[in-house]
Amino acid sequence: MQDELSLVTYSMARMVDITHKKDLVRIATARGKIHLRRETIQLIKEGRVEKGDVVTITKIVAIDAVKRTSELLPFCHPIGITHVDADVRLFDDYVEVEVTVKGLAKTGVEMEALTGVSLALLNVWDMVKKYEKDETGNYPWTKISDIVVVKKVKLDESQMP
Amino acid sequence: MQDELSLVTYSMARMVDITHKKDLVRIATARGKIHLRRETIQLIKEGRVEKGDVVTITKIVAIDAVKRTSELLPFCHPIGITHVDADVRLFDDYVEVEVTVKGLAKTGVEMEALTGVSLALLNVWDMVKKYEKDETGNYPWTKISDIVVVKKVKLDESQMP
Amino acid sequence: MQDELSLVTYSMARMVDITHKKDLVRIATARGKIHLRRETIQLIKEGRVEKGDVVTITKIVAIDAVKRTSELLPFCHPIGITHVDADVRLFDDYVEVEVTVKGLAKTGVEMEALTGVSLALLNVWDMVKKYEKDETGNYPWTKISDIVVVKKVKLDESQMP
Amino acid sequence: MQDELSLVTYSMARMVDITHKKDLVRIATARGKIHLRRETIQLIKEGRVEKGDVVTITKIVAIDAVKRTSELLPFCHPIGITHVDADVRLFDDYVEVEVTVKGLAKTGVEMEALTGVSLALLNVWDMVKKYEKDETGNYPWTKISDIVVVKKVKLDESQMP
Amino acid sequence: MQDELSLVTYSMARMVDITHKKDLVRIATARGKIHLRRETIQLIKEGRVEKGDVVTITKIVAIDAVKRTSELLPFCHPIGITHVDADVRLFDDYVEVEVTVKGLAKTGVEMEALTGVSLALLNVWDMVKKYEKDETGNYPWTKISDIVVVKKVKLDESQMP
Amino acid sequence: MQDELSLVTYSMARMVDITHKKDLVRIATARGKIHLRRETIQLIKEGRVEKGDVVTITKIVAIDAVKRTSELLPFCHPIGITHVDADVRLFDDYVEVEVTVKGLAKTGVEMEALTGVSLALLNVWDMVKKYEKDETGNYPWTKISDIVVVKKVKLDESQMP
Repeated sequence: MQDELSLVTYSMARMVDITHKKDLVRIATARGKIHLRRETIQLIKEGRVEKGDVVTITKIVAIDAVKRTSELLPFCHPIGITHVDADVRLFDDYVEVEVTVKGLAKTGVEMEALTGVSLALLNVWDMVKKYEKDETGNYPWTKISDIVVVKKVKLDESQMP
Repeated sequence: MQDELSLVTYSMARMVDITHKKDLVRIATARGKIHLRRETIQLIKEGRVEKGDVVTITKIVAIDAVKRTSELLPFCHPIGITHVDADVRLFDDYVEVEVTVKGLAKTGVEMEALTGVSLALLNVWDMVKKYEKDETGNYPWTKISDIVVVKKVKLDESQMP
Repeated sequence: MQDELSLVTYSMARMVDITHKKDLVRIATARGKIHLRRETIQLIKEGRVEKGDVVTITKIVAIDAVKRTSELLPFCHPIGITHVDADVRLFDDYVEVEVTVKGLAKTGVEMEALTGVSLALLNVWDMVKKYEKDETGNYPWTKISDIVVVKKVKLDESQMP
Repeated sequence: MQDELSLVTYSMARMVDITHKKDLVRIATARGKIHLRRETIQLIKEGRVEKGDVVTITKIVAIDAVKRTSELLPFCHPIGITHVDADVRLFDDYVEVEVTVKGLAKTGVEMEALTGVSLALLNVWDMVKKYEKDETGNYPWTKISDIVVVKKVKLDESQMP
Repeated sequence: MQDELSLVTYSMARMVDITHKKDLVRIATARGKIHLRRETIQLIKEGRVEKGDVVTITKIVAIDAVKRTSELLPFCHPIGITHVDADVRLFDDYVEVEVTVKGLAKTGVEMEALTGVSLALLNVWDMVKKYEKDETGNYPWTKISDIVVVKKVKLDESQMP
Repeated sequence: MQDELSLVTYSMARMVDITHKKDLVRIATARGKIHLRRETIQLIKEGRVEKGDVVTITKIVAIDAVKRTSELLPFCHPIGITHVDADVRLFDDYVEVEVTVKGLAKTGVEMEALTGVSLALLNVWDMVKKYEKDETGNYPWTKISDIVVVKKVKLDESQMP
């Protein structure tokens, strides 16, 4: 039995217990970038990407991803998301996505915001694959980077709805 | 930057912020029909549809669909559904499905009821495909129609549990 | 045991066995309508619906729904979808959605096309709720109808890729 | 119409209405076993199972399964899970899994704990298939058994957070 | 770097590579039991379980679970399921579920059959909770057991469709 | 009608038609980093992260994410994944994740590999949140970056299984 116990101790996989934490308004904003070729950005700006309207569709992907966070990340609790706001901004050689999530929850919503940003950036990549590939089907320039939490707050009880 | 901003403004995709709305008991009933051949309805009534018991299975599909609404519709918030009731009624040349959803929520549950009705009607179609197809594999008579919200209410706070 | 057997017989729930059917190119087109107030259609046309670009987002909902059909309908087999095309057409007092699905599959893809149309129409409803509600929060005019399979074909083996 | 009504009555499929039940802290513990060959258990203990670390991965499967219970079982309500704890214990000829679930909910969480245990045991099987199969690819010794609810409690309101 | 490498080696988590295995018809049958009170079985037989028709609904749960196996178990590959058959048999003090799965696949479908059986048995439990609980809300008699693979075969190439 | 048509044209959202492309063995490798505090990396190396074994669990998250890519990204086709391999490497101040995906498919699997990497990196973040937060609950150092496709190939027909 000793072996058994030590193995159990080692192989922990523990969801934090939030049962006794208060439901508070939690807000988190995350942001990230995808570096693309200038010509590709131009196609997005001109609405000429064959798969469709990159900006609108990327926002939808972000919202859907935020809602599925607790299915994708084992230690994330299911959370009552009350708002998602996604911005997609086009610069000369990169696209920036910023996602803000609000929830009335016992734990912060930064993983939800980060998941929204990450899937949104992946969707941008997926929609412009054709314009980013070289002749071998590889992507010498495309890169997702700088995914960070910009801001995370919780309102105190006096600010509760 | 001007172009960028105007594009962002155009390509809005905005989930309504319900953070500060009250949790109230919300109830919604939706209803719809699927038109089938009289012979098909007869088979359902006699329990002779090969795939199985259309009425029971359709109710299960409705319940499952109601619970997955926020995964299927981007702007639907995840909601704590507390009750689903599905009725499947057989008439001479159509089947009617009515779904009532209750939840303790910050927003109405009519999309949940409508999603339950829609998937339920699709399941009826799927279960009787064989009897509705013509010799080319097409469906000259089958039609889903009249999907409406029958009633939507919210209980005021004095009626809260 | 007799009771048991008869009950088993009655309570059938049977997925069709497609193991020995050929993989063929299957194509199905489904179509449906949502009746809206003329003012609401006008808002969609002018890009002034607060939740965002109804046409683009509805297409995305259709594509996502097509891919999830076998999760939503118990008797649908998982199918290798190879193409989805969704059209959203604005008329004076209704919106029409048409979805075409292609797959290399052992069974038809009409349920996939119908599921795409149904969820697409529900998304239109969800995005324009605000403009369709009366003062009691009900929907006296809004109605989904005429969901049909427009065309279903399978290519014979000589037409296979 | 009489036939219709009696059929409707028969074919009930009813989710319990929990709208007016109180949100209380609910805790449930479930447990089960999978019988394996002694040699297989030895491989797990020595960390030599080719697919990876059985104990850790099984815990993750349990947590994921708990969170998906209401998608898998039609009559389970979506519940705000606040904690999952999974233990995987290695004995001479079986592996025991115990899962404890907490939630702030209107209904008990025993189905969530049982679903966690069941999928965890299936994952153990899946990870050691290779060592349990006989030469025909069958499993003469492998068996899942004794899945029970060990304990189920709800805290009364004075113990609420 | 040495530490890093040894840790990587230890922490393996490896999906088997089936790229170069042949697509063959794979068939697997799994079976299991849930022990219930005799009075509960009687209620099922008489169609008096309040939540609905246990036998039919359990079959649907089995079919749905089979199709979702690769989402629930990390090392299961997505498989083109072509048939699921679920039997639910009522005995004096237990219910037996048997699930047969067929697929045209590069790997066996026994985990799919076992997942179908497991979720089916959980659904039986969930539907009869009310009749199995003692006064403390616990389950002194209810138990799931004897989940085994009854038979697993693959057809050789000459038997292929 | 002219307005209608021009709007449809503008609001395209088009899944590429891969019906007539060949099923070939497709392989893609993606890679990315998460920058963490040195102290956090040390805790991972020593197996002292409270939530559990970061390396093993991150691999499981990667595998699960790869299999769900077509649910998360609208334009990704469902693909028969035949292999996933995930490496998690610990450096002094960052963790690197590399995911290789194989499939027998009509289209490349780079989005699957990228989705695996992205969710894996998010899981690392989620598991070490506690050690990365400053006193305000924010993350001044944590950053995901350099997510790229390392290599993408397809085997030609002569190399097919």
